Amino acid sequence: MKITSVNNELIKEASKLLRGKYRDETGLFLLEGVKCVKEAIDSELEVVHIFSTEGFEEYPQRIEVTDAVISKISDAKSAPTVVAVAKQHIHKWSNSYKRVILLEGIKDPGNLGTILRTASAFSVDAVILYGNTVDMYNPKCVRSAVGNLWKIPVIKIKDIRELNGYELVSTLPKGNNVINLRDFKPADKTVIMFGSEAEGLSVELKQIADKSITVEMNNSVESLNLSVSASIVMYEVFN
Amino acid sequence: MKITSVNNELIKEASKLLRGKYRDETGLFLLEGVKCVKEAIDSELEVVHIFSTEGFEEYPQRIEVTDAVISKISDAKSAPTVVAVAKQHIHKWSNSYKRVILLEGIKDPGNLGTILRTASAFSVDAVILYGNTVDMYNPKCVRSAVGNLWKIPVIKIKDIRELNGYELVSTLPKGNNVINLRDFKPADKTVIMFGSEAEGLSVELKQIADKSITVEMNNSVESLNLSVSASIVMYEVFN
Repeated sequence: MKITSVNNELIKEASKLLRGKYRDETGLFLLEGVKCVKEAIDSELEVVHIFSTEGFEEYPQRIEVTDAVISKISDAKSAPTVVAVAKQHIHKWSNSYKRVILLEGIKDPGNLGTILRTASAFSVDAVILYGNTVDMYNPKCVRSAVGNLWKIPVIKIKDIRELNGYELVSTLPKGNNVINLRDFKPADKTVIMFGSEAEGLSVELKQIADKSITVEMNNSVESLNLSVSASIVMYEVFN
Repeated sequence: MKITSVNNELIKEASKLLRGKYRDETGLFLLEGVKCVKEAIDSELEVVHIFSTEGFEEYPQRIEVTDAVISKISDAKSAPTVVAVAKQHIHKWSNSYKRVILLEGIKDPGNLGTILRTASAFSVDAVILYGNTVDMYNPKCVRSAVGNLWKIPVIKIKDIRELNGYELVSTLPKGNNVINLRDFKPADKTVIMFGSEAEGLSVELKQIADKSITVEMNNSVESLNLSVSASIVMYEVFN
């Protein structure tokens, strides 16, 4: 079987997964590129369809398609040779997680993917999404995570009080009562909280924090990119 | 004076600056957004025109334009209220620089802008671009640098032997004879070299390096995002 028409029903269904609403409804998402799809197949992820112009003949889910068909189900600038449809991994919060980061209101899918990649690299146990955040199954986030999206539990929580028993640490610009990152030692169970790209942490999370830390820097620069500052903090605290 | 037509000559000229070839020919580039344009005006940068839908009335270079006109000279997803045209800053190599990073073949303008922002924050003296790299005046790079593009000298060099007298340090994945970043102490004059997103460092630069360093991480992850690893190295070595 080879699909040559962009109007094929399977392709129309898959292309709808470029939109967040349809990903929510179906619990499915898209994976692009040889490396990413191979990592997904080798993981515990359930891969439903593999649409490819070449390769992947050994997998029963594989369907051959044309370049035009692949372009229809990818939002990358240059279309990949393979796009897969997989089931989203749903994680629940567990009190056994010790090394945790929380991202409040993160908006840029590239930042989220990059942070998940770094969190996997530095053995963070779980990532919490809090408030109105970008969908982690956004194709740009999936690309930026480079195969690390499903290696780490990502959990949405609605009430910060679920984190009872954890030391809550806010990350802030320089100020009073802020600990320099280099001098900070985490508790046994720690949640380090990062605010959104534009707004930083909300008053709610700033007030609930047990401690505040900052990355010291030169006065001429106001702040770092969010994925950079989160990565530096994870490197220093958890690696 | 108010420009209401996207076919106005000044606007047509400015919109050509969205393309690298025209930036090279004219030595000009585009700046977007209130914060970025204000930082540019307050810096030593020469700002030639300020096109805005509102504000900036106090500047002689300001020309009022419509929303449609602004959209024509911006490549951002949502058009800003102000776009300026400024002269590129040309820096020459100086042997007085001590804390230096070199980026070989960097391709993603977002990564370059983010690295320039971090380099400014951690007081790096200069950034060298080597090999076939993205143009730092690409609008996406200008946006990612968030007003830090002109705070740090960025220099293109063609021959690595110009760096005579510097300790050259390669950044590599784990391997033999690689120093863990945490144990590395820089010489008085150090150049830390980073390879491209897809290829890493070339054989030429790997062979010429005096030392090699690596960011230790969990085995399940192959590598970090380039702007993340460069930022962690700058934080650890220079901050």
